[in-house]
Amino acid sequence: MLKKVTAKQFRQTYTTASVQTQDSRLDETVLTIISDVRNNGDRALFRLTEELDGVSLSNLQVTGDEFREADMAISRQFKTALETARKNIEAFHVEQKEQSWFMNPDSGITLGQKVTPIERVGIYIPGGKAAYPSSVLMNVIPAKLAGVSEIAITTPPDENGNISPYVLAAAMEAGADHVYKVGGAQAIAALAYGSETIKSVNKIAGPGNAYVARAKKWVYGDVAIDMIAGPSEICIVADDTTNAAFAAADLLSQAEHDEQARPLLVTPSDAMAKAIQEEISNQTEKLERKATIRQSLEQNGHIIVTETLAEALDTANFIAPEHLQLMIEKPFESLPSITNAGAIFLGDYSPEPLGDYVAGPNHTLPTSGTAVFSSPLGVYDFVKKSSIIHYDQDALTKVSQAVSTLAEAEGLTAHANSVQIRKGENHA
Amino acid sequence: MLKKVTAKQFRQTYTTASVQTQDSRLDETVLTIISDVRNNGDRALFRLTEELDGVSLSNLQVTGDEFREADMAISRQFKTALETARKNIEAFHVEQKEQSWFMNPDSGITLGQKVTPIERVGIYIPGGKAAYPSSVLMNVIPAKLAGVSEIAITTPPDENGNISPYVLAAAMEAGADHVYKVGGAQAIAALAYGSETIKSVNKIAGPGNAYVARAKKWVYGDVAIDMIAGPSEICIVADDTTNAAFAAADLLSQAEHDEQARPLLVTPSDAMAKAIQEEISNQTEKLERKATIRQSLEQNGHIIVTETLAEALDTANFIAPEHLQLMIEKPFESLPSITNAGAIFLGDYSPEPLGDYVAGPNHTLPTSGTAVFSSPLGVYDFVKKSSIIHYDQDALTKVSQAVSTLAEAEGLTAHANSVQIRKGENHA
Repeated sequence: MLKKVTAKQFRQTYTTASVQTQDSRLDETVLTIISDVRNNGDRALFRLTEELDGVSLSNLQVTGDEFREADMAISRQFKTALETARKNIEAFHVEQKEQSWFMNPDSGITLGQKVTPIERVGIYIPGGKAAYPSSVLMNVIPAKLAGVSEIAITTPPDENGNISPYVLAAAMEAGADHVYKVGGAQAIAALAYGSETIKSVNKIAGPGNAYVARAKKWVYGDVAIDMIAGPSEICIVADDTTNAAFAAADLLSQAEHDEQARPLLVTPSDAMAKAIQEEISNQTEKLERKATIRQSLEQNGHIIVTETLAEALDTANFIAPEHLQLMIEKPFESLPSITNAGAIFLGDYSPEPLGDYVAGPNHTLPTSGTAVFSSPLGVYDFVKKSSIIHYDQDALTKVSQAVSTLAEAEGLTAHANSVQIRKGENHA
Repeated sequence: MLKKVTAKQFRQTYTTASVQTQDSRLDETVLTIISDVRNNGDRALFRLTEELDGVSLSNLQVTGDEFREADMAISRQFKTALETARKNIEAFHVEQKEQSWFMNPDSGITLGQKVTPIERVGIYIPGGKAAYPSSVLMNVIPAKLAGVSEIAITTPPDENGNISPYVLAAAMEAGADHVYKVGGAQAIAALAYGSETIKSVNKIAGPGNAYVARAKKWVYGDVAIDMIAGPSEICIVADDTTNAAFAAADLLSQAEHDEQARPLLVTPSDAMAKAIQEEISNQTEKLERKATIRQSLEQNGHIIVTETLAEALDTANFIAPEHLQLMIEKPFESLPSITNAGAIFLGDYSPEPLGDYVAGPNHTLPTSGTAVFSSPLGVYDFVKKSSIIHYDQDALTKVSQAVSTLAEAEGLTAHANSVQIRKGENHA
């Protein structure tokens, strides 16, 4: 069911969709919604929610009563799972906290880097038919650890105007400040520019559909955004020692997301390629979402058979996958060779769904090959830095010739004057 | 010459231009150039350089001979200034280097964060009439320290097809790998998508005009970009102890950049506001670029007189300036109150031009209020992170219930299967 190719063939044909494809109809719809929200605020949000989500809301913000109802609706088992996930996510992300620092490179000089939390952050959580409590934890917890003062969640309501109790329970567990019943491009516009009810934020994070992604691209620059996510990939590197049933189950778990998902297997072992292929056929039958899985496998799945393990690792770097599983005999020994991957899972007992929910590291990862230049979501995404510069008079005098020379080379004579005046030159 | 307002009046009227303004003519021009370069490679680059820069080039890449000529053309004084700047920039940025780390939160569990350099980076340097050797150092040095393997500079040639010897000397000093004679949107397109001569890169950094900025916005997502820079600001906080002549010189140095530059003074001292205003009038006369300076002062300059120093610091945070100078009696004591600023200069002997050239911290800073969510360019911009996840069988067993519960709440049953199969459940 998966197309079998060599590494060379694969490199010649594999392309990730350009995120930048022009789509003027989508742009028009999204830009109309953005300007509607900027001009009409809450009124636009109520109207758009009625038109697009089919529900007439009485209030945009989730109330204390709604939170209490959600708390009573969820099972003890779900609550425990949420707590386990929250604790593990916190334990990992707390290690990402950065400190401000200072240095004194010479007499009279203090330089430094001050780390300050972003003040207000908005998190978009998809809704409607499905609920994504794990995305709530993965986005809110790093923002909270960064010291963000106000964290708002927006998520579309269901046809009765309610938000999933799973999402509300996760919002409480993670410590979000507000939850708003708004979805789509209108939610992104409200977070970016504000409305009567929703305060504008400085940064927007979280996954979403094509409208949400496009709206994020348009507001980017006025506010910060986390990333524009494309289809999800898994790349499994296998050898003769891999448990074929496990590898197949993991490829299938990726394939169930949607038809665009890319399940990729890279192995120097022809026998293992065959064994995993068979396991895939057997396991698919028993899975609920087999229709989606089949489409994903057929349209985007590949088995890449390489000459050597080294070539398999090279191929993984070429793919720069969102999720990379090294299901090989000595995964830690191959770790130094990996240069491009969102998250790297080592060994037979570290499947991708473990990382999606409870392992601790973030599940918001660079997709579609963007791991060549970007990182998992982390605490570092919710702070910013300021440089600190202090020179005393003597220290400035020592470098003022260098400043003037460079400023004059660039034709910026008032820049040169600003240091000369401090030496008493050119000054009346 | 500077408009005098209260903090309240200022807040009501001050807006930074939206980076996201639609400009369909600019978009059309830029998108046409991008697709020309994608389709025609070098041929498009030669042709566009002839059309737009008015010069017919024989080669796109600067040769070894051209580097040697540049080296002979520059003065000893310039070379020394370049060396001073390079050493100081390195000494500061080396402190930003991040280490990979691992943790073992429980028996059988290894988690971590692997830091890897971005492989190939492109730096855009504006050219034509002016030369910006300082931008070369400020962009190339952090990329180099991050461990980037290939650093390419693109910069437009002058009417004789040459690149400024200042720029070439700085490229050698900083250790860039290639310099290409291409400017404008065509340079950004070549860096993003490659041509016969120019290899595509993973990230593009560096300043540029409206075409360059717009091209960066369009290729963003396919490659990473540093930021989209807007007009430059300085905000000086003064009190009764400030040296008025120094403050005036620094406001004027900002104003000489272009008419869009924003020189802002915030002070609780009416007397100091007056003294600085007078110094501005006196000093402007003697400056070469006084025409530009006057326009900047009149169109975008403000003196904001506040009730207290605390209100002045609040106003500075509201502005979130690219450059903030605390020219007050006890600048270090006010540092904790500053939450939004690109770079913070403390005291009377730390003028902004010091930071532009030789202090050490980067001069590429968030402009137009984007310091609320973004940081100076740094080594961290040229690396990316991968999460590491390893669980052994026992460790996975302990959390598999939590994984299944959360996966099932999200309707992702193949995810649940991936952990269940490892317990021997649901597996034939």
